[in-house]
Amino acid sequence: MTWLDLPADHPFGLAHLPYGVFSTVADPAPRVGVRIGDLVLDAARAAAATGYAAGAAWATPSLNAFLGQGTTAWAAGRAWLTQVLNDAAYQHAVQPHLLPLDAVTLHLPITVGDYVDYYASAHHARNVGMIFRPDSPALPVNWKHLPIGYHGRSGTVVVSGTPFHRPCGQRKGPQDPVPVYGPSVRLDIEAELGYVVGGATSMGERISVDEAGEHLFGVVLLNDWSARDIQAWEYVPLGPYLGKSFCTSISAWVTPMAALQSARVDLPRDEADPEVLPYLRGTGTGVQGSGGAAFGLDVHLEVRLNGEVVSRPEYRDMYWSPAQMLAHMTVNGASVGDGDLFGSGTISGPEKGQRGSFLELSWGGQEPFELADGSSRSYLQDGDEVAITAWAPGPDGTRIDLGDVSGRVRPPR
Amino acid sequence: MTWLDLPADHPFGLAHLPYGVFSTVADPAPRVGVRIGDLVLDAARAAAATGYAAGAAWATPSLNAFLGQGTTAWAAGRAWLTQVLNDAAYQHAVQPHLLPLDAVTLHLPITVGDYVDYYASAHHARNVGMIFRPDSPALPVNWKHLPIGYHGRSGTVVVSGTPFHRPCGQRKGPQDPVPVYGPSVRLDIEAELGYVVGGATSMGERISVDEAGEHLFGVVLLNDWSARDIQAWEYVPLGPYLGKSFCTSISAWVTPMAALQSARVDLPRDEADPEVLPYLRGTGTGVQGSGGAAFGLDVHLEVRLNGEVVSRPEYRDMYWSPAQMLAHMTVNGASVGDGDLFGSGTISGPEKGQRGSFLELSWGGQEPFELADGSSRSYLQDGDEVAITAWAPGPDGTRIDLGDVSGRVRPPR
Repeated sequence: MTWLDLPADHPFGLAHLPYGVFSTVADPAPRVGVRIGDLVLDAARAAAATGYAAGAAWATPSLNAFLGQGTTAWAAGRAWLTQVLNDAAYQHAVQPHLLPLDAVTLHLPITVGDYVDYYASAHHARNVGMIFRPDSPALPVNWKHLPIGYHGRSGTVVVSGTPFHRPCGQRKGPQDPVPVYGPSVRLDIEAELGYVVGGATSMGERISVDEAGEHLFGVVLLNDWSARDIQAWEYVPLGPYLGKSFCTSISAWVTPMAALQSARVDLPRDEADPEVLPYLRGTGTGVQGSGGAAFGLDVHLEVRLNGEVVSRPEYRDMYWSPAQMLAHMTVNGASVGDGDLFGSGTISGPEKGQRGSFLELSWGGQEPFELADGSSRSYLQDGDEVAITAWAPGPDGTRIDLGDVSGRVRPPR
Repeated sequence: MTWLDLPADHPFGLAHLPYGVFSTVADPAPRVGVRIGDLVLDAARAAAATGYAAGAAWATPSLNAFLGQGTTAWAAGRAWLTQVLNDAAYQHAVQPHLLPLDAVTLHLPITVGDYVDYYASAHHARNVGMIFRPDSPALPVNWKHLPIGYHGRSGTVVVSGTPFHRPCGQRKGPQDPVPVYGPSVRLDIEAELGYVVGGATSMGERISVDEAGEHLFGVVLLNDWSARDIQAWEYVPLGPYLGKSFCTSISAWVTPMAALQSARVDLPRDEADPEVLPYLRGTGTGVQGSGGAAFGLDVHLEVRLNGEVVSRPEYRDMYWSPAQMLAHMTVNGASVGDGDLFGSGTISGPEKGQRGSFLELSWGGQEPFELADGSSRSYLQDGDEVAITAWAPGPDGTRIDLGDVSGRVRPPR
């Protein structure tokens, strides 16, 4: 029983405790906060008031210092939070450091190190293959053997709510004799989860599937805004570049992996799927090692365009797990840094209403989808706002709310 | 006339003045140094001793603070250096802060923000196309319309001299029924120039070709170590990832663009080359705007394998200029940060002896090249050391020496 006035089933209850970075008008220095209900705990100040010395890492403008302390410190921090927010003996010391959510400004929670984006949904990869490469096999031949990924631009990762300008660039349709320049006319979203990494490693070290939990700190919602026309013209042979690098949005609250224990599920596999190489297997259980450390997550997403739900992707449909993606990232000896971020890739399911991009929802613009007002849509218009929300099962039938990532498209500059 | 005991034609003379980061046994805090002859100037201390207040930015463990001050500060810093190293009135104050090069440890000169690698040599792109994609046109259809690039891993950029372990990963040859795991058997180099960026911009801003000089601080030598077997299996459709992300080496000294005025050349173009879109042209002169702000550089490289020269690439053969690459990077509104780095891509010329990768020198392993001892080589062996050096014309017939980037291959871990 907590001393807080908080319904037991609140989606930001004591079983959740996500971390973010905030400031206030009275104290504009960004610092780490923890969301509880509709309040934000000024974590470093509450720690100081209760004599929790390790909380000094929270008096910094990003989660990176805390991420660098590693898994033991993450567990200790969560244990301390759970104790002081439950035990009435701490109420007097802690309560002054709880601020109303609507009185704070939220910032980017991490200083992003390397940002990698994966492509871990077979449904998405197959759809994109059919749309972009109609003359080739829908799923690339390597796709079920390794989690395909690429590096993205970390300097343009922004916190939810940050607007951006429609990007300009080159495009060339099949009928255009030469490329043309202008604002993207196929501006899209990609609904993803992002994983925040900590416990930096050195070059030459690998993180196995079984060790991944020591480096996977938490989860954010991620929207990898994409200009499909720019991407289609530029991406052969070295992959997406300007079609993706103008903006990537993440949610303000990082949900610790520790809060998602009840959301763990086996990965979808059937007997026809190839056995993966041992470094991608770990000591998992289930079909072809799809469980255990290589677990998936039962996260339910909703994508809203100007308030209207246009898709409901299910994260449990993803083929590759976060542990597999991290093991793959480091199998060549690449180091990871505190604040590294990797995206899952667009989350799409087998049904049309579960597709996580407009490219798929409108089938490359050939089948515009209808909105409630009778209009139809293929891609984003100036002024559009997209918000992605998600929830996952918490303990005892409760829900964990992963918050939201939103952004609005401004006209081109 | 300088008060320093320095030959007028020294390749690290007063016309050069490259920046780096160093430490000493007596003072292990890394800080900015400037190379002059075979000495390193402890820049912040010399600045303090002469009352140059802006030099405080050099009392930091990377060039990033100085990069953030922008082009006016860069010019002022260079003017101050030139003055105090010339004018005997400063000798008494400055001389105590000159240290022998062999008494210092050199560190990574920048904290790398985003790292992008381009593909700006038509000779290299054509060679790779013929080797990797024999059934397609050698040069991708987009290649002469835009500088193709992709993001690399900034966390594994290391300073010259740092060894690395041969990477492991998946590969699958055309005859292999399934992918296999193990150490790369096609470990390669890519001889490149890298450009160090400063004067951070905000999202939504663009840097035009004409403005690029305000953000291009300087040049390093760069070796983009590459595992060709890992790369060949993974890179379709999202580009290179683990085949590149294990290590990228840069030289310790950053040569300011201001030192390369005498090395500016027009880009190679002929009438058959397509006109590029205006945003890639600038207000240049020469054939199709290939001169002016979109200048190339007359830098002469040598690639040594265990001391033996195996290639002499010429940077003047590159198709795309640094200003064009920077303008392209930001045309979609992507911001740049202080300490961002972009590589030119492998520098290859029309002759076999000018190819900047073993992939090309051995034509995908089909034509191993001979070494002086009679042995032949296709790719790197454990224990191999590769060193890349370069020079460019300086004023009055002198040479600017761009130093070297070297690295040794350790056995797989």
